[in-house]
Amino acid sequence: MISIEPGELWSDLETIRKKSPLVHNITNYVVMNSTANALLALGASPVMAHAAEEIEDMVGLASALVVNIGTLSPAWVFSMRKAMSEAGKKGIPVVLDPVGAGATRFRSETALTLLSEGKPAIVRGNASEILALGAQDAKTKGVDSLHRSDEAVEAARILSEKFGVTVSISGPSDMVVNGKKLAVVSNGHPMMPRVTGMGCTASALTGAFAAVNPSAFKAAAHAMAVMGIAGELAAGKAAGPGTFQACFIDALYSLGLKDISEKIRVETRES
Amino acid sequence: MISIEPGELWSDLETIRKKSPLVHNITNYVVMNSTANALLALGASPVMAHAAEEIEDMVGLASALVVNIGTLSPAWVFSMRKAMSEAGKKGIPVVLDPVGAGATRFRSETALTLLSEGKPAIVRGNASEILALGAQDAKTKGVDSLHRSDEAVEAARILSEKFGVTVSISGPSDMVVNGKKLAVVSNGHPMMPRVTGMGCTASALTGAFAAVNPSAFKAAAHAMAVMGIAGELAAGKAAGPGTFQACFIDALYSLGLKDISEKIRVETRES
Amino acid sequence: MISIEPGELWSDLETIRKKSPLVHNITNYVVMNSTANALLALGASPVMAHAAEEIEDMVGLASALVVNIGTLSPAWVFSMRKAMSEAGKKGIPVVLDPVGAGATRFRSETALTLLSEGKPAIVRGNASEILALGAQDAKTKGVDSLHRSDEAVEAARILSEKFGVTVSISGPSDMVVNGKKLAVVSNGHPMMPRVTGMGCTASALTGAFAAVNPSAFKAAAHAMAVMGIAGELAAGKAAGPGTFQACFIDALYSLGLKDISEKIRVETRES
Repeated sequence: MISIEPGELWSDLETIRKKSPLVHNITNYVVMNSTANALLALGASPVMAHAAEEIEDMVGLASALVVNIGTLSPAWVFSMRKAMSEAGKKGIPVVLDPVGAGATRFRSETALTLLSEGKPAIVRGNASEILALGAQDAKTKGVDSLHRSDEAVEAARILSEKFGVTVSISGPSDMVVNGKKLAVVSNGHPMMPRVTGMGCTASALTGAFAAVNPSAFKAAAHAMAVMGIAGELAAGKAAGPGTFQACFIDALYSLGLKDISEKIRVETRES
Repeated sequence: MISIEPGELWSDLETIRKKSPLVHNITNYVVMNSTANALLALGASPVMAHAAEEIEDMVGLASALVVNIGTLSPAWVFSMRKAMSEAGKKGIPVVLDPVGAGATRFRSETALTLLSEGKPAIVRGNASEILALGAQDAKTKGVDSLHRSDEAVEAARILSEKFGVTVSISGPSDMVVNGKKLAVVSNGHPMMPRVTGMGCTASALTGAFAAVNPSAFKAAAHAMAVMGIAGELAAGKAAGPGTFQACFIDALYSLGLKDISEKIRVETRES
Repeated sequence: MISIEPGELWSDLETIRKKSPLVHNITNYVVMNSTANALLALGASPVMAHAAEEIEDMVGLASALVVNIGTLSPAWVFSMRKAMSEAGKKGIPVVLDPVGAGATRFRSETALTLLSEGKPAIVRGNASEILALGAQDAKTKGVDSLHRSDEAVEAARILSEKFGVTVSISGPSDMVVNGKKLAVVSNGHPMMPRVTGMGCTASALTGAFAAVNPSAFKAAAHAMAVMGIAGELAAGKAAGPGTFQACFIDALYSLGLKDISEKIRVETRES
């Protein structure tokens, strides 16, 4: 069974810092700045590019692709499909963030199209989004979850088996699901959902880890652990969600092996 | 006559924090992140969505709609009109922010179309923007005001009576106008106009208050008082406009009844 | 020979703070917020506007135009061309930031079209971008440079002579080139490339300086020196790239003559 080890997480982080893999993001307007900064703080090299005219060239340079439908429109969806197709041809990992799936039919349908056609390695969403993709009756409130992550594990398992994908569910405890394998990441802080785009940041960092670790399951769990640990470190310095954002980026930047070893709380199970 | 009471403002804020109303924003690229964070810090749940394909579904979930023309283009204006029409059918309050009205004909004409056709409950702008909508000869310098808020009260009154709308004019003193009623909010700090999008943030928070208070006049005045008080608190901790932004979000998050009661400076008049 | 003097830089900064020139930006989604805040902190008045419908009116109000292709698409390129044409008719300075030139053919070709057709006063890019425009064989990694700024001086000279433009190359040392003239700005801090959009911010501030100083060479050098000095001041207060961003904006806001005189490190040469 796969287990998540602080030493391997640290090794991935060192590789990201040393090689600075290019992570190509087609993401929403709200988080372009904050996710680019999170990727830079982690050690990766972010690029945001959405024009169909340059998708092929840009995917050609990238080590991972992150597709996020947070502020989607038909022209952007066209580019997302093209980018995922190019990533598939090139063999680089794709992370899909189905922001707001379950809130509108356009988002649910787009997310399912990208999932079935684009063959992402990892889907990273909140519980309501994963439920909306894996079950029929789930509802999402705008882009915020109405469900706990453990409620979505069964839906994640269905998605994982149907589409051959690793599913990463963020929440007070994060759940990473691949077939029968489950990793539960208990790091994090209640301030995190009070900052916009922390889920999108998790998806972006998942892309960076997927660029350096061939196991999608491990890459997803490593990213969620790093998110949670950085969140705990930031919360110790912040006076509210405004200062938290800056402290979170600082924590990503200076995260050391000692922080990871002392704070990591990940359990793996196989059912 | 309507008066603005700290107790009712506090009650609105508690309701926002408890119910976390979904505020649907069709807003400009510059402020999507900062206004989402301000809404989250206040206690509301923000969503940004602009595709015509999902407007009906998203408005259907929302408790208020905020339309902001800060970086407009024809496709976005189409979605704004559709969203305002849907909001009208559903009966949720709409806040219109006519960013840069008076600077270009495209902005002035779009703002007037949205105002006359879309029937917002509240228009929130700076003095130059309100003058540009309510009078013929006013000019706006890009998106910054060339006028004091009191110079725009007469134009606001004309707009209020013509379109049945509450007009909220931001400035060193904020003026909220509904027909013959006027509230003057004297809270705030000179650092605020040195941060981009503080007016847009005021509009977003006005949407959150309108989601919980059926009086557009009170909702607008409550939002401006909260903006101003949070600005004063932030200025006490910040070393410049960069740290001010983070401290402002922190202040919105931790704003207590004592802060409000001690600092609020609102006068109401009826002419 | 032109030399860069702290006194003239300070005089430009005072003029910006006093007159608050309107800088019209057609820029990328990632940096709209951060560059608007940097311009406001410096003392200028930023506006972001991209719709072809309002380009003529907005350029008509502006004192400088900044065109940045960081997240380009054909509709935006159309507006950029129109804006540069209007700026040329009106005689206001244009700064072009060819973000990611060399990474994709779309970016390289767009940058060359805007450069040859739009007659910018200043091109501000990193070394890889300048090499991609001035030489055939250079590659860019996404939007990050693979080259040192001194490697691009020869390419900058070629561009400068061919297009009559001042070229400003950012890097650990910034190089400003106009024909045979060269200014080397040695201010700055290694934290700066760890924050997204610092190059874009340099371009925006270059626009503000170009609005008040008729010498493109001096305007470019003044902007790079201010960037670098503010970066050094911010690094003295920040714990990482997150807090750095806020401290950088604070430093721009409070930058004094003493800071400039004590810290400026600019050398000029003529070959």
